[in-house]
Formats: sequence, structure tokens, C-alpha cells
Amino acid sequence: MSITLFLLFLLACCGAGATGAVFQPGAWYKSLEKPDWTPPDWVFPVAWTTIYLCISFAGARVAVLDGNEFALAFWAIQGAFATLWTPVFFGLRRLKGSLLVMVVLWPAVAGATWFHLQLDVWAGLAFLPYLVWVTVAAALNFRMWRLNPDVTPIRPGEL
Amino acid sequence: MSITLFLLFLLACCGAGATGAVFQPGAWYKSLEKPDWTPPDWVFPVAWTTIYLCISFAGARVAVLDGNEFALAFWAIQGAFATLWTPVFFGLRRLKGSLLVMVVLWPAVAGATWFHLQLDVWAGLAFLPYLVWVTVAAALNFRMWRLNPDVTPIRPGEL
Repeated sequence: MSITLFLLFLLACCGAGATGAVFQPGAWYKSLEKPDWTPPDWVFPVAWTTIYLCISFAGARVAVLDGNEFALAFWAIQGAFATLWTPVFFGLRRLKGSLLVMVVLWPAVAGATWFHLQLDVWAGLAFLPYLVWVTVAAALNFRMWRLNPDVTPIRPGEL
Repeated sequence: MSITLFLLFLLACCGAGATGAVFQPGAWYKSLEKPDWTPPDWVFPVAWTTIYLCISFAGARVAVLDGNEFALAFWAIQGAFATLWTPVFFGLRRLKGSLLVMVVLWPAVAGATWFHLQLDVWAGLAFLPYLVWVTVAAALNFRMWRLNPDVTPIRPGEL
């Protein structure tokens, strides 16, 4: 595996990772009603860091293989929509809007897992933690939306 | 060119495109000091739509070619950082932060242009409008940061 390619895919992950750093949850997130299986706060950065390392490894593995077109197209989709989720949830407080992001993100991760697996078993396996996590995150987003019907969105254009 | 691949890369662009739709500029943007060469508002969605169509075409062209690893890694980086820029600028009002995003986005677009051009001349040419635009956008971001030293950031976690 090329270390340069690994670092380039990891740089793409930093786009999504940066949203977690700059859109802080704060008191508002603490005040949300959450299902009792919500992971503790420290799990989120640990999970995402693990995922970013794994999918950067996966991207670097398949990038040099013939027939990687669908694997890398799905890789690019998940990268953009993973970057979109946090600003919509924490920046705009649009719980339904972020669920719509999940409607694209979940199939993008599932597709990426599938197409990576077709090319390289280690790359496919490296996407599995992400598939598990995005399933949990989508379920959590859905439950939070249903449990908190009265959240007031932030409208930055009106502030 | 595969229409399916074109649509998949276009879907990735929709992540960045959605930020323009949900993070509206509003009165705050109008009130910013801007250089006199700032394009009128209508130019932005037209430019971005053109760019998204062009780079989706470029991605679909190179995705089926051997040796596409750097082209598609840079494609993925630009997709994530293009999605990051708008929430940082309009959602957080962090003009210096969004300039830092540009510090990654500009080389990502330049790298994508270069590596697409090595594989396929049409794909490389299709990235050129993006390279021109992101150069203008980075210059504009820099000037706005310098002209508006007293912008108060939005801190969603504290609202």
C-alpha cells in the first residue's frame, strides 16, 4: 500500500473530521432527549478516528487496482456527505435535515463497502466498522428527531 | 463515458451543493465589506453548477482508466473540502477558518486538474473552470477576511 495514497485519503477524511472539531455539541446537545442506548460522548471521536484510518487504508488499497471506478465513486460520495452531516445537525440544528443526509450517507457507505469487498477483501473489511457505525448513527439521528419535535433550527442568515 | 458514474460523482457534488442551499448568506453577507471585483450574487450558483457538471464528467472519464489513483484521491479531497467551506464561512462566520479550508481546497483542485490531465485531456480541461473559480474564491475569501476584522463568529454550541 502506498503511504502517499493513504495520507491523501486521510486528508479527505480531515474535511469530515474538521466539522466535528469546529461544530461543538455544547449545552444544546446535552439538553436533547436521547435514547438510552446513546453512546457516551467519548465514543464518537474514537469511533470516527478509527473509521477514518480504516477507510483511508481501504481507499489506498483499491485506488491502485483496475476496475476501482465504483469503489472510488462511492468513497467520494461518503466523504462529501460525512462532511455535510455535522454542520446540518450541530450548525443548523436540523434533525430531519441531517436524517436526509443519512439517507444518502448510509447507502454510500454500504455501496463503498460492497465495491471495496469485490476488489480486495481487506479493503472491504476495513469499511465494515464504518457501516456498523453509520447504521447506529442513522438510528440515533432518527430517534433524536422523533424525541425532540420542538427543536428550533439555527438560521445563520437571520442572525 | 458511463452515465451511472457521472451521476455518482454528481451525487458527491450534491454534498457541497447542499451547503449552498442550507447555509444562506442573508443580511450578514450583504453587510460585509467586499472588494469591488466581487462577482454579483447570481454568479455563484451558476459557477458552482457548471463546475459540478464538469468535474462529474471528469471523474466519470478517469474512473475507468488505469492509473487513476491520484486523480481520484484528489477528487475525493476536493469533494470533502468544498463541502466544508460553506458551513465554516456562513454557518460559523469564521473568515480565517474558511481561508484555512481554502489552503487545502486550492491545492486539491490544482492536483486533481493536474492528475486528470495526465490521464485524459478532456477530463483535465473539465477541471480548469474549477481551478479558475477556486482561485477567485480564495482571493475573495482573503480580501473579505482582511476587510472585515471585527466579524463575530457564530458559536452554535453556545446558542
